[in-house]
Order: sequence, then structure tokens, then C-alpha cells
Amino acid sequence: MQILINEVKYWMTEAGEMLKSALLENQLVVDTKSSRTDLVTNLDKAIQDFIVSKIATFDPTAKILAEENDRDRLEDVTGRVYIIDPIDGTMNFVLEGENFCIMVAVYEDGKGILGFVYDVMKNEFLWGGPSVGVFRDEERLAQPLDLGLEDGLLGVNTKMYRENVRDIQQVTQQAMGVRMSGCAGVELNHMVMGRRVGYISNLAPWDYAAGGVLIEAMGMKMSRIDGKPLDLQDRQHFLAATPTAYQQILTITQGNEE
Amino acid sequence: MQILINEVKYWMTEAGEMLKSALLENQLVVDTKSSRTDLVTNLDKAIQDFIVSKIATFDPTAKILAEENDRDRLEDVTGRVYIIDPIDGTMNFVLEGENFCIMVAVYEDGKGILGFVYDVMKNEFLWGGPSVGVFRDEERLAQPLDLGLEDGLLGVNTKMYRENVRDIQQVTQQAMGVRMSGCAGVELNHMVMGRRVGYISNLAPWDYAAGGVLIEAMGMKMSRIDGKPLDLQDRQHFLAATPTAYQQILTITQGNEE
Repeated sequence: MQILINEVKYWMTEAGEMLKSALLENQLVVDTKSSRTDLVTNLDKAIQDFIVSKIATFDPTAKILAEENDRDRLEDVTGRVYIIDPIDGTMNFVLEGENFCIMVAVYEDGKGILGFVYDVMKNEFLWGGPSVGVFRDEERLAQPLDLGLEDGLLGVNTKMYRENVRDIQQVTQQAMGVRMSGCAGVELNHMVMGRRVGYISNLAPWDYAAGGVLIEAMGMKMSRIDGKPLDLQDRQHFLAATPTAYQQILTITQGNEE
Repeated sequence: MQILINEVKYWMTEAGEMLKSALLENQLVVDTKSSRTDLVTNLDKAIQDFIVSKIATFDPTAKILAEENDRDRLEDVTGRVYIIDPIDGTMNFVLEGENFCIMVAVYEDGKGILGFVYDVMKNEFLWGGPSVGVFRDEERLAQPLDLGLEDGLLGVNTKMYRENVRDIQQVTQQAMGVRMSGCAGVELNHMVMGRRVGYISNLAPWDYAAGGVLIEAMGMKMSRIDGKPLDLQDRQHFLAATPTAYQQILTITQGNEE
């Protein structure tokens, strides 16, 4: 396991340097995918190709699920699967030059064993899993307090908030406050560090896989917004929270159909 | 002017060290003001008292408008006025340990001549004014591009967004994306750096005074959300934006009464 951990950290650190250089040298080529606000850059593709090539050498029989280049579907998730988001928060990468993450998760037979979330410009590298614990760089992190909704901040997806999906506006009004960073990795890292009691968004598997391993290893809960299990297929309404906040949120969201 | 600039930067750097120490040593005592989510800490008051005492020595005839300790009203804003927010983003200070700012503005006869916004944990110190230019530490910053709403991110107040005040949900749908950081200083610093095309919130004078000097010195616009001038009195619905985005936003907000 230690060799695997060191390998993935090495790839991601290298990838982070590529992104920092690209920002400094202004090498971004920005394109759109499904809509005018669904951005992709030459770097999303280049970083993914870089990590995929490393996996092909290091672990040639493993499967890969990743955001770009037609690797975004995997019917069969048995065996070892690497789940990659080369740049989570591409819009922030392009418009803020910060608040974006490189993320890699390692799954075995549908269960997350390792997660790596690297907030590149903040230089905050969180990683770990159920058997090894959760670390920031080499420092082992303590489990956050199990705070209720009323004592913490909640990360929320802009569109779901505006459309009041499953009455999440009511959820947010029970929280101390609402934050929208535009990056799932930033939000899940905040949860790992005890800076959020929850996060509600509309996420693809590569958006939550790595951070999800970390928050579950920290004793937090995640599922679809209606409490049903996530399944690494498609985009789903995602809920993650401390155990106490999770129950508080489900009480509202399960009582309100979409 | 240079002596004044150096003085204020020195006070704020000292104040920043006090906040960093307090976070490290876990010295926060948290209280509430108008509601359960309107937080204030012992540090808000201590930092303000520290800066006020420095002003009393350096500039004894000046007036002071500040968030805490009954200094939050000033009928007469003629002469020199220092406007202080000791901790902008107190909730972030308490719950995130980051994304909060110390802010000081210097006004003469109702006009901003200097603004200082110090994002303490990010160590991003922006300062300047109409006669000296705008700086990050000692580096002079170039004026950001005059991007339209469709090309940039918009910072928005959570409650105004939820309540769709003056149809700002329509405004946000024309933008590339929406962000909510919970700190006016963070949002206005983003604008100064060209990472936001605008910011809409419900702000008191100490929330926007310092950052407002900087964005105006960068050729951007600010006013109430209906286009009327801000007046350093009371809390007001605040709009700041690039010249192009400002006109686009007013077209919507002026057509929709509150």
C-alpha cells in the first residue's frame, strides 16, 4: 500500500507543477463542452493523459474512470479502479487561478481504499483511506467534531440552491451559513479539516470519489441526497455531512420529492 | 501620504499577527450580536481597540467609524475619517480559520483616499488609492480587463440570492458562475485581481469602504444596487462591478423594485 501511496502522490505533485507553470506562463486554451459555462482546457486533458500513462506503467491491469477523453463511463467497477479528476473546478482554474484540485481515488471492487485531493495553489494535499488514516502532507489529522447543522457552514451547489431542490433552502437556513466555492475538492477538504458540516451538490463520480474516501475515513456520511447509495454511475445529487448533520438534512430532503 | 501608508500597513500587519496567534493558541471567545448567526469574538474587539489606539496617537483629530464597541454611527463624515473592520468575515474566522480580512479605509470629506485589505491567512495584502495606484505588497497591479457578466464570476450574498432581491438570480444566470465566500474583503480583493466581474451584497460601510477605494482606483464602479450613491450610513444593498458588468446588472436591478 505504501508504494501505491507514494506513486500516486508523486504523479499528482508532478501534475500540480505542470498546472502552476501553465498558469504562470499563461498557456491555457479554453473550450466548452455541454454548455457555455461547462469549461475544459488543454490542461485538463494533458494532466489526465499524464496520470493515465503513469497508471498504465505502474498498474497495467487496472481500470480507469476519468472526466475527459471518453473515459467517463465504466459499466464494470470490479477489481481495481483509478478514478481521476485532472482539474476539479476548471472554471476557478481559468477565472481565479486558484481554488481547483487534482483528485485521484483508488477503488477495489466498488469500495474506496485511498483518496488523494490536492488543492494546488493552496498547497494543501490531503490523502488517506479507511486502513491508513487521513493525512495533510505527512501530518495525521484528528477526526473532526460531529457538529450539527446549526453549528457549522454548509457548502451548496448554486443551481440546486436557486431551484430549491428538495427544499435545501430550508436546510441552509438551519445551518450557520452557506458557502459556494465552485470546487468539490475544496468543499470536501474543508469537511476533512472540520470547516464544514456538510456539502450538497450535483456531482459525477470523479468529483466525489477521492474526497469521499477521506470523509468516510473521518467518520462522516455520504450518499445521494435522498439517502440512497452512490454507485459510481452518472451524475447524482450528492450529500455529505457529519453524522448529526446528515440525519438533520435527510429529515428535510427525504420529506421533499424532486 | 507615504508616512500614513506605512503607519496603517504596520498596524494591520501587527493586528494580523495577533489573529494568527489567537487561532494557533485557540483563544477565541465567541458571542452573538443581532441573531444566532451574527458572530463577534473577543478578537474583533481587541483588534479594533488596537487600531483605534494607534490612530489616537498618530492622528488624534481624525474621526473613526468602526464595526464594534458603539463606533458604528458617524453623522458627520467631513474631515479625515478612518473606517475600520477589525475582522471582516468573523464567521469564517471562527469556523474556517481562513478567508477573513482586516480592513482600514482613509476618507477625506466623504471621499476615499486610501484602502487597505489584508487577507490574513492567505497573506494577500492589497492597498492603494486613486492618487497612488493599487498594490499587492510592493508590487503595483495592472488594471483588470473590463469583462462583461458573461465572461466572469460574480460574488453574491446568500440571503439576497435566495430571496431573489431585484431579480439577481437573473443577473447570476448571465454570469459564468456564482461564488459565496462569506467575506466582503475576499470578494473585493478578487475584483481587484480581475478574478470577479462583480459583487452584490448587503453591506455596512466598514464592509466596503477599504475594498471600494481599491476597485474604484482600478476603474470599476460601485453604488447601491439601484444605482444610487453609497453614503457611509447604515447597511445598504451594495453593487460593485466592472464598467461593462455594472451596466448589465443595473439594467436588470433597476427594472425590478425591491
